[in-house]
Amino acid sequence: MISFIPKEEKFFDLFELSAENALKGGRMFLELLKDPVNLEAKVGAIKDVEHAGDQITHDTMEKLNKTFITPIDREDIHELISRLDDVIDLIETAAEKIMIFKVKNYDPKFISLAEILVKSMEAILLAITCLKRMKKPDAVMKSCIEANKLENEGDQVYRQLLSNLFEKVTDPIEIIKQKEIFEDLENAIDKCEDVANVLEGVILKYA
Amino acid sequence: MISFIPKEEKFFDLFELSAENALKGGRMFLELLKDPVNLEAKVGAIKDVEHAGDQITHDTMEKLNKTFITPIDREDIHELISRLDDVIDLIETAAEKIMIFKVKNYDPKFISLAEILVKSMEAILLAITCLKRMKKPDAVMKSCIEANKLENEGDQVYRQLLSNLFEKVTDPIEIIKQKEIFEDLENAIDKCEDVANVLEGVILKYA
Amino acid sequence: MISFIPKEEKFFDLFELSAENALKGGRMFLELLKDPVNLEAKVGAIKDVEHAGDQITHDTMEKLNKTFITPIDREDIHELISRLDDVIDLIETAAEKIMIFKVKNYDPKFISLAEILVKSMEAILLAITCLKRMKKPDAVMKSCIEANKLENEGDQVYRQLLSNLFEKVTDPIEIIKQKEIFEDLENAIDKCEDVANVLEGVILKYA
Repeated sequence: MISFIPKEEKFFDLFELSAENALKGGRMFLELLKDPVNLEAKVGAIKDVEHAGDQITHDTMEKLNKTFITPIDREDIHELISRLDDVIDLIETAAEKIMIFKVKNYDPKFISLAEILVKSMEAILLAITCLKRMKKPDAVMKSCIEANKLENEGDQVYRQLLSNLFEKVTDPIEIIKQKEIFEDLENAIDKCEDVANVLEGVILKYA
Repeated sequence: MISFIPKEEKFFDLFELSAENALKGGRMFLELLKDPVNLEAKVGAIKDVEHAGDQITHDTMEKLNKTFITPIDREDIHELISRLDDVIDLIETAAEKIMIFKVKNYDPKFISLAEILVKSMEAILLAITCLKRMKKPDAVMKSCIEANKLENEGDQVYRQLLSNLFEKVTDPIEIIKQKEIFEDLENAIDKCEDVANVLEGVILKYA
Repeated sequence: MISFIPKEEKFFDLFELSAENALKGGRMFLELLKDPVNLEAKVGAIKDVEHAGDQITHDTMEKLNKTFITPIDREDIHELISRLDDVIDLIETAAEKIMIFKVKNYDPKFISLAEILVKSMEAILLAITCLKRMKKPDAVMKSCIEANKLENEGDQVYRQLLSNLFEKVTDPIEIIKQKEIFEDLENAIDKCEDVANVLEGVILKYA
C-alpha cells in the first residue's frame, strides 16, 4: 500500500532542481554574452545543463504517471515542469544560435534582457522554495508578482531591441539572425511568467 | 457554507467582459489601419484596452482558484479566458509594432485581415452571450462554425498577403517587419478559433 | 444505458486513422521535395489529406464530448488528436509555402529533414497500433523513444540547414522564405515528439 501514500516533498524537490538548473543556464548565458571568448566551450557547457534539465523533466513525468495521489493537481505539476524545461531549452537554443549564426556585435541592451531572465528565474526559484516549505504563501505570491513585473520589463527591452535593430543595422541577414535570438530569450522570460502563474494558482487553491 | 455554492453566472459575465474587450481592441486596430493619423495616441488607447483585459483575466483566474464547484469544467474556464487574453495581447503587439517599426504602406488586404478578426470576435461574443443564457445551444454552435469559417478565410488572406509581400516589396527589411505584423494578426484570428472550439466542446458536453 | 459503456476501441481507431493520415501527408511531402514537377497538383493533394485530417479530429472531439467514460484520460485524448492534427497542418502549410513563395533550390539536407518527419510518423503509428492492442507496452515505449531520438536528429539537421542558409544564400528574401518552410517542418517533427510523450504517459499510468 506504500505506493498510494503521497510523497509530497519529492515533487517540490524536483521543481527546485529544475528551477536551479534553469537559473544556472541563465547565468551561464549571461556570462557568455558578457565575455564571448571560448564560445564553443561555453555553448557546450550550456548544452550539458539543458541535458540535465531533460533528465529532471523526464523523472518528474515518470513520477507523475506512477503517483496515485499528488500533492498538488496533476495538471499543475505537468505545466510547472514543462514550462521550466522550456526555459532552459530556449536558453540553450539562443546560445547555440549565437555560435552557429556567427553573430558578432550585439546591442548592449541584449545583456539587459539576459539579466531580466536571470532575475526572473531567481524569483521563480525563491517562490518554489517557499512553496516547498508550505508555510510562506505570501512570499510565494510576492515572488510571482516579481516575475510578472520582470516579464513586462522584458517586453519593453525586447521591443526596444527590435526598434534599435531596424534603425541601426542595415544588413537584413544580420537583422534576421539577431531578431531570432532576441525572440528566444524573450520567450524564455515569458515561460518564467507562465511558471509564476501556475504557482500563484496553486497558492490560491490551497489558501 | 455560502462559498461552496456555485455562482455560475459570474464566470460567464467575465467571459463576456473579456470578449467585449477584445472586440473593442479589434475595432480600434481596424480604425488605426484605416486612418493612421495620431498613431501614438491610438496605439496608447489599444494598450489601455489590453491592460483592462489583463485585469479581467486576473480576476477570472483568482475566481477560478477560489471556486469549489464551477459551472463548466475548470480546464475549459482556464482555456477560454487565456485564449481571449491572447487575442487582445496579439492585437496590442501588432499595433505597437506598426508604431515602432515605422511601417508606412500596407497591402490593402491587411485591412481585410483585420476585418476578419473583428467578425471573428463578433461571432465569439455572440456565442458567449448565448451560452450565458444557457438556452440557445444551436445559436452557440452556429457562431462557433462561423468563427471556424472565418479562420479559414483569414488563412487564405494571410497567405495572399505573404505572397504579395514577396512579389511586390523589394526591401527585405520591410518584408521582415510586415510579415511579423501580419503573423500577429493571423495568430489572433487563430486564437478566436481556439475559443470557438472550447465553446463547442462545452455545448457538446452539456447537450 | 448503452451510451455509458465505454467503446474503448473507437478512440484508438480514430488515433490510428489520424496517424495514418499524417504519415500519408508526410510521404507526399517527401515525394514533392524529391520531384517538384506538377507542384500545384501535388500541393492540392496534400491539402485534401489535411482536410481529411480535420474531419478525423472533429469526429474525435465530438466523440470525446459525448462520451461519459473514456478508455484513457480525456486530456490525453484531446492532446493526442490535437498534436496529430498539428502535424498534418504543418505539412500542408510547408507545402503551400513552397508553391506560393516560388522557392526553387533547396539544400539537399531539407530532404533529410522530411525523411526524419516520415520516420517519426512511422514510429508514432506503430506506437498507436501497439497501444490499441493493449498488450505490447514495451513496443509502444520503444517507438516513443525512437520518436524522441528522431526529434533530436531533426533538431541537428534543422540547425545545420539554418547555418548553411546563412552561409551559402546571399539573397535575404530567399533566406526569409526558406527559413520559414524549414521551421514548419521542424515544428511538425516536434509535434510528433509531443504525441510520443502523451503515449508514453498513457503507458506509465496503466503499467
